[in-house]
Amino acid sequence: MKLSNYLLPILKESPSEAKIKSHQLMLRSGMIRQSSSGIYSWLPLGFKVLKKIENIVREEQNKAGAIELLMPTIQSADIWKESGRYDDYGKEMLRIKDRQERDLLYGPTNEELITQIFKDNVKSYKNLPLMLYHIQWKFRDEIRPRFGVMRCREFLMKDTYSFDLNKQNAEYSYKKMYLSYLKTFEKLDLNAIPMQADTGPIGGDLSHEFIILTDTGESEVFLDKNLLNINIKNIDYTKNNIDKIIDKFSKLYSATDEKHSTSEFNRLVEKKNQLHTRGIEIGHIFYFGDKYSKSLKALVNTKEGKNINPQMGSYGIGVSRLPAAIIEAKYNNEFMKWPKSVTPFHVAIINLGKNGDEVDKKSNDIYTFLKNNSFDPLLDDTSESPASKFKNFDLIGIPYQIIIGSKMKKEEYEFKELGKGKMILSKSELLNRLKEIYHSDQ
Amino acid sequence: MKLSNYLLPILKESPSEAKIKSHQLMLRSGMIRQSSSGIYSWLPLGFKVLKKIENIVREEQNKAGAIELLMPTIQSADIWKESGRYDDYGKEMLRIKDRQERDLLYGPTNEELITQIFKDNVKSYKNLPLMLYHIQWKFRDEIRPRFGVMRCREFLMKDTYSFDLNKQNAEYSYKKMYLSYLKTFEKLDLNAIPMQADTGPIGGDLSHEFIILTDTGESEVFLDKNLLNINIKNIDYTKNNIDKIIDKFSKLYSATDEKHSTSEFNRLVEKKNQLHTRGIEIGHIFYFGDKYSKSLKALVNTKEGKNINPQMGSYGIGVSRLPAAIIEAKYNNEFMKWPKSVTPFHVAIINLGKNGDEVDKKSNDIYTFLKNNSFDPLLDDTSESPASKFKNFDLIGIPYQIIIGSKMKKEEYEFKELGKGKMILSKSELLNRLKEIYHSDQ
Repeated sequence: MKLSNYLLPILKESPSEAKIKSHQLMLRSGMIRQSSSGIYSWLPLGFKVLKKIENIVREEQNKAGAIELLMPTIQSADIWKESGRYDDYGKEMLRIKDRQERDLLYGPTNEELITQIFKDNVKSYKNLPLMLYHIQWKFRDEIRPRFGVMRCREFLMKDTYSFDLNKQNAEYSYKKMYLSYLKTFEKLDLNAIPMQADTGPIGGDLSHEFIILTDTGESEVFLDKNLLNINIKNIDYTKNNIDKIIDKFSKLYSATDEKHSTSEFNRLVEKKNQLHTRGIEIGHIFYFGDKYSKSLKALVNTKEGKNINPQMGSYGIGVSRLPAAIIEAKYNNEFMKWPKSVTPFHVAIINLGKNGDEVDKKSNDIYTFLKNNSFDPLLDDTSESPASKFKNFDLIGIPYQIIIGSKMKKEEYEFKELGKGKMILSKSELLNRLKEIYHSDQ
Repeated sequence: MKLSNYLLPILKESPSEAKIKSHQLMLRSGMIRQSSSGIYSWLPLGFKVLKKIENIVREEQNKAGAIELLMPTIQSADIWKESGRYDDYGKEMLRIKDRQERDLLYGPTNEELITQIFKDNVKSYKNLPLMLYHIQWKFRDEIRPRFGVMRCREFLMKDTYSFDLNKQNAEYSYKKMYLSYLKTFEKLDLNAIPMQADTGPIGGDLSHEFIILTDTGESEVFLDKNLLNINIKNIDYTKNNIDKIIDKFSKLYSATDEKHSTSEFNRLVEKKNQLHTRGIEIGHIFYFGDKYSKSLKALVNTKEGKNINPQMGSYGIGVSRLPAAIIEAKYNNEFMKWPKSVTPFHVAIINLGKNGDEVDKKSNDIYTFLKNNSFDPLLDDTSESPASKFKNFDLIGIPYQIIIGSKMKKEEYEFKELGKGKMILSKSELLNRLKEIYHSDQ
C-alpha cells in the first residue's frame, strides 16, 4: 500500500478523552474512531490488525477441533425468557422491539441460541463430543463505556460452546480450550496467565480467566514468576499432555485481587518469585454442566437409549479487545512495535526523497519488488518532513523499516528493526532477511 | 473433516415453509437454520460457503483499489437526522433506544456513517480518489421476510463508497466498481448482467443493478443473448479498457420489467437473440454526487485552496444472498453442484465400508493423504446406507467425489464429478487430478 492512497489519519496530539495508552495510541495512529458512545469504526490500519488477530484465534480453534458457524447478532427474547436470563441481565442487555412489536435483543453472549441450535439439530450420542464456535459482534450496554475498545459497547467476541455426554468428557473439552487459549495468546506474543475465577452470570462449577500482565491493567494480580516460563510449544491435544501442562500452571500461585490471600501467597511463593502487578482479562472459560441444556430442554439419546441433557461449557475471547491489550503490553510510550504475527504491514518503506527524484524511484522500485515477492509493505510516499515521517511510524508500529535516503549507494538499503540498530543490506539480503523474519516458523 | 465429528443436519424432507429451491436446499443440506423471523444462523456447511464468497468479494475489491475498514452495526440516529433519511426510511429501519434513552438504529446501509468518517479524517484533495468498503451485517425490518436468506432481515453486505473531486473522476470510480462486479460474479461462476436501474432511496443520477438469470428469479428481465458472451478476462482497471468493456455491455439491450419497452426490444434485438426470463439482483451500484457530502457538510480542500463537497457513489453486493443465488442458478433439483471457487469442501470421500474394515481403512488413508497435500476433503465415516450417503451428497453439492467400495483394487480409486461419468484413478493420478482442478488458475 502507498500511504498517499490510504486512509491513515494520524493525530499529532492525544485526544483528551483517551485515558489509557492503548486508547490514545489507537486514536493517534488512526486505527479506530468513535462513532457514538462506546461504538467504534475500525479504520483500515486497525481493521488489518483486528483481522489478523481474528484469523489467529480461528486457526487455533480449528486446531483444537472446534467447528465454526455463525449465529446472528439479533436474537429473539423468547429463548432468554426460557433460560431465565432475560430478567437477570438487566440494563446491559440492549432490548429492541421490531415493527411487529416482538421482543428482540442484541446478543451479549450466545449460550441460549447455541443450545437451541444443538437441541434442534443434534439427537444422538454419536455426534458428541461437539465444540462449536463463532466470531461475531456482540453488544453490552455498559453504563459507562471507556478506555476505547477495551470497554466498549459493540465488541467482537469469539465464543465456543462444548457439548459432552458426561462430566469427564466435558472436562476434557474444557482443558482443550484451556490449552488452545495458551497457544492463541502465545501466537499473539502475549504472556497470558490462566487464573481461577468466579463464574458470574454465566453460572457453573469451574472457570478460568486468562490475564495478561501490564502495569496499566484493570485489576491487581499476584503470581509466581515461574508461571511466565512454562513452555507450551509442541504440546498437542492428547489428554495426557494437556493434563501435564495444566498441572504445571495449577501448581503455581496466581490470583486476581478478588481471590488473593496474602498469607497463602507468602506461604507458597518464595519472596524473589513473588510478582504483584496489574492485568487485563482477554479470555474466560466456563464449565457449567447442564444449566442451559436443562432449562432449554436439549436432549441427546445415549448408547443405552436414555435421553440426557448434555454437559456444556463456554469459552470466550474478546477479539476486539486484543489490539488494545497488545498495545498495553508492547507500547513503551516512545514507539509501538506490533508482534510480527499481527503487524498491519510487514515492513515500512520510508521514502525521504521528493516526487520523481532518484530516491523516490528507488523507494517505488523496492516497494514493487517486495510486493512481487508476496510481502505487504507500506510505502510512505507523502511530502511530509523526514522527522514527521519517523514520528508517525513510531505510532504505526510496523516492526521493520527500510529507510531510503540520498546518502546510500544505489544497491544499498538501510534496514532497521524498531528499537534496535540499523544495518545496510543489498536488495537480495533484504529479501532474505524478511523471509527469515516472516516465514521462519512456517 | 470427518462427518461423524461435524454438524451437518440433513433433512429428508423439504420443510413446508420453504417456497423456493434455494431455501429448500439450504435447509435440507444443513447450511442454515432460522432462529427467528427473517434471522438465520449459518451452520458449518453454510458458513464455509459464505466465507469463501466473502473472500472472493474482498479480493476483487482490493484489486479494484478499494480499501477495507469496518463500521459498526449500531449507529447513532443523529447522522440520519442530519441527512434527512431518519424519517424517510420508515418501518424498515430497526430503531433502538439505549439505557440512556438515546436514539440508535441497526444500520440498513452506511452512506451517512462513511461520510461522517470521511468528513472527520480527510481534508485534502491529495487523499482523493478514495474508495472505502466494509463487509458487515445489516438489518432491514422487512414486513414479510421470506425465501430464506434471499429476503431476510439480518444480512451480510459488502458496501463500498467512493469519494472524488469531480464528476469525471467519480464516473471512473463508478466504472471501476462496475468492472470489479463483473469479475467478482465471474469468479463465482455466475452470469451477472448489469442493467440500468432506478436509484430509489439512495438517490442519485446513475445506477446499475447486476442481475443473474434464473427462471425462479424475483423479477422479469429482457435481454440480448449476446450479453452472455462478453469476455471480461484480462481486462485491467485502466480507464480505456474499462470504457471499452462497459461500452460492449451498454450497446446491447437489457432491462428489468420496470424499464422494459417491447417496441424497443423488438427494434434493437433480432428475434433469435431475444431472451425473456427472470432474474435475481445480487449487486447494485449508484452515483449520487454530493447528496450526502452536502447534507453532512463533508469538505475537501482543492489544489486551488477552495473547499468543495466530494462527489460520491455507493456500491453494494448482497453477500449473504449469494449462496442462495448460486443455488438458484446451479441446482437442477436432482443434485447441487457448487462452483469450485466456493465449494464447502474440495472433495467428498464416500466410505461404503464398515467401521474398521479394509474399505474403512482405505478411506481414512486417502483422507489423511489429501489433507497432508493441503486439500480439504469431507469423509463420510457414518454408518448410513450407501444409498442414503449418495442422496445426502447430492444435496451437499461438493462437486467431486471419491467413492471407496469393496470392489476396487487396493490402489484404485473411483473418482466422479457430479453429473458426469466415473473414472478409475491411482492415488497419484487422483492427487494430480485434484491439483489440476483446484490450482489450475492460480
